[in-house]
Amino acid sequence: MVNTLFLPELREMLADGNASGLAEFCTALNPARTADYMEGLTADEAWQVLQHAEAPWRAEIFSYFEWDRQLELLRSQDSAQLADLMAQLAADDRVDLLQELDDQQRVDEVLAYLSVADRRDTLRLQSYPEGTAGALMTTEIAMLPERLTVRGALEELSRQAEELETIYYLYVVDDEQRLRGVVSTRQLVSALAKPDLRLGDLMETDAIVAEVDEDQETVADKVARYNLLAIPVVDSSRKLLGIITHDDVMDVMVQEMTEDFQRISAVSPLEEGYLETNLLTLSWKRGTWLVVLFFGALLTAFALKSYGGELQHFAWLGWFIPLIISTGGNSGSQSATLIITALSTGDVKLTDWIRVIFREWLMGLMLGGGLAMVGMGIAILLAPSPHDALVIPITILLVVACGTLVGATLPLIFKRLGLDPAIMSNPFVSGIIDIVGILIYINVARLILS
Amino acid sequence: MVNTLFLPELREMLADGNASGLAEFCTALNPARTADYMEGLTADEAWQVLQHAEAPWRAEIFSYFEWDRQLELLRSQDSAQLADLMAQLAADDRVDLLQELDDQQRVDEVLAYLSVADRRDTLRLQSYPEGTAGALMTTEIAMLPERLTVRGALEELSRQAEELETIYYLYVVDDEQRLRGVVSTRQLVSALAKPDLRLGDLMETDAIVAEVDEDQETVADKVARYNLLAIPVVDSSRKLLGIITHDDVMDVMVQEMTEDFQRISAVSPLEEGYLETNLLTLSWKRGTWLVVLFFGALLTAFALKSYGGELQHFAWLGWFIPLIISTGGNSGSQSATLIITALSTGDVKLTDWIRVIFREWLMGLMLGGGLAMVGMGIAILLAPSPHDALVIPITILLVVACGTLVGATLPLIFKRLGLDPAIMSNPFVSGIIDIVGILIYINVARLILS
Repeated sequence: MVNTLFLPELREMLADGNASGLAEFCTALNPARTADYMEGLTADEAWQVLQHAEAPWRAEIFSYFEWDRQLELLRSQDSAQLADLMAQLAADDRVDLLQELDDQQRVDEVLAYLSVADRRDTLRLQSYPEGTAGALMTTEIAMLPERLTVRGALEELSRQAEELETIYYLYVVDDEQRLRGVVSTRQLVSALAKPDLRLGDLMETDAIVAEVDEDQETVADKVARYNLLAIPVVDSSRKLLGIITHDDVMDVMVQEMTEDFQRISAVSPLEEGYLETNLLTLSWKRGTWLVVLFFGALLTAFALKSYGGELQHFAWLGWFIPLIISTGGNSGSQSATLIITALSTGDVKLTDWIRVIFREWLMGLMLGGGLAMVGMGIAILLAPSPHDALVIPITILLVVACGTLVGATLPLIFKRLGLDPAIMSNPFVSGIIDIVGILIYINVARLILS
Repeated sequence: MVNTLFLPELREMLADGNASGLAEFCTALNPARTADYMEGLTADEAWQVLQHAEAPWRAEIFSYFEWDRQLELLRSQDSAQLADLMAQLAADDRVDLLQELDDQQRVDEVLAYLSVADRRDTLRLQSYPEGTAGALMTTEIAMLPERLTVRGALEELSRQAEELETIYYLYVVDDEQRLRGVVSTRQLVSALAKPDLRLGDLMETDAIVAEVDEDQETVADKVARYNLLAIPVVDSSRKLLGIITHDDVMDVMVQEMTEDFQRISAVSPLEEGYLETNLLTLSWKRGTWLVVLFFGALLTAFALKSYGGELQHFAWLGWFIPLIISTGGNSGSQSATLIITALSTGDVKLTDWIRVIFREWLMGLMLGGGLAMVGMGIAILLAPSPHDALVIPITILLVVACGTLVGATLPLIFKRLGLDPAIMSNPFVSGIIDIVGILIYINVARLILS
């Protein structure tokens, strides 16, 4: 929903060149709210309005624009102005934006305008592979020596507060920038009564850290587990390289869950948003799995062919095929989804496998039993005799029990093999149940109708 | 994975009554890490070890135990000791634990041991309905008057730092505890050079707040959108009641996504973890949807019955039924999942519906076209003639195109109606495609084979 409350006023101020009015608009509100109110403007208008905000404030408002708007603004402005804004952004956001610009000449120009330190940071951050702690981190952190006192640290913090990405942890390092410990601002404030205490005596040495090449998912797990606001990133010699803040961790968690969502329905995770992904890429990410599943489903055709005789003879059996396989598939997908989500939230561990499988086996009997009774009611209407109709409830009971067992077992096996348990599990489970279900059906039919 | 590194040592110290050793173990490490190392102990042993930590530290370690362990410990100890620990916990955690104890007598005893203020807070927090901001918030916040200076605020903060849930925002209130503005610790630290500045002049008045009865999901969205560490919770007269911190918001986001995961596979969201949910509840949450889907699938049986003649005549047509409906179902689930995740991350908005449907229609033709070619290759092997075989690729193309369209449209319709787009969408989509697929199949067959 685009917020249009201030649009007419903003446009009037732009037309009148009302600099003081625009400057006030830019600073009166929370920057995020200011960004919301500017959503309805064209890129050019938004850029003009932004010029009336002071530099750090401008970057702040800019960072709350939607991603597409940010890129649109960057593409529409010249490199000198861009660099000005870029210098004010957090290093990690700067790198992400430059990466997305898709215009190497433009990127080089912007880099040339940046200060030496900013340029070096940017190039270094760009070099870390996607999905690692290095690619997530930012570099604006408070690194202080052990010998600094509480008073000195507060003064230093006061000087740097504007530039730092977070002021909630102070990182204590030695002369080679190796991490020695962490002091939280909470500890620092608590120690105000002892202003001459040294950071070395206050710091917690058992800091939770992320290795620079660590997978972003494990980093996110640590931050959540230890309730951190930020986690320091170190290299193998424990040199402090940067930090990852909680908001980036939140993004990672949403991203990882979205990927699991996509995998569970047999879509290879998209690297970009749905609307940004081009159709060829999308069809590739979906088509490969569809073809795999298609060949799996082919087995059902061959199974039915080889049992052709029965189906020819008892035509009413054929009518129930879709009902039976989709019921089995649905109960299997339920099990798979429950186990996958429980594994990912840590609610179920691999060591619980016996309990999980026992529960799902019981669940299969309960659900299958219930559905079998409903199925019997229907089958009596369609089958030539109540005795023949028995094929349907017995098959349903067995297929549902199989479904829950397969659905519960597959994610556990995938996890055990070190794979993502979500890999195309639901359609995979349904596919297996299709085949197993048909085999069960035909054999139950043979037994009862012979 | 239970960490057993310190277990033998801990047990030895317990046996020897080595109080100083245990006290050191409790304070030497980060409390979260200490909790990890105690995982292998029995509840009784863990409780004994905890007795050697000082009160606030003990609660800190305790709060990092897994939820089940926390409850186990609480159930095994007497109410006086419990109340001692409870008093040290954050108010929101205390309420959650008491709620889970399932033993009203025990809860009443603990409440009786708490201080008047703690008891009042606890009872008040318990009264907010689950899923609202009120039920998520905690009450330990720094509320300061406008006239307080920067220096005074720092001193006040220093005194309270130990008890506060977060020290990263100071909330400025009037005499009736109504929220006037917010000062971040960052602003406070930046203003150190002007120690006589009043909070009233420093504070941001345009604070982002949550209403006490607001849904937890919209609160989480605000915190994420505005990159907050905590959000203040107010009532309708803007009286400040408490705050919600970012770690609780993270939990809400994971919980909401897990619920969507469950809904998308036709499981009503579980209120507790998978292993904690009893089998009757679980079978109810799954069974109701399975029965609904079962009756939907019954339509396929009646459809096939009424077309019985063709199937009897062309037996090979029957062999392809599972293949066709599961291919359609899979492509439909892919579309539904992509649109549901894109809607939930905000990547797709309702206003994009024309673009989404057009893309999915194209995608259906592309994927359907590809699969149709594969299908033709197989059909030639099984059908009596290449002309007859044509039924298969034409059906596949149409069914996949239908699948993607239905999969893309349903979540948009649900969202438009104000429902959760994830409500049992995948099996629902598959169910529709089962029926539509069979109708398409039979009619294509009639057209070509007649």
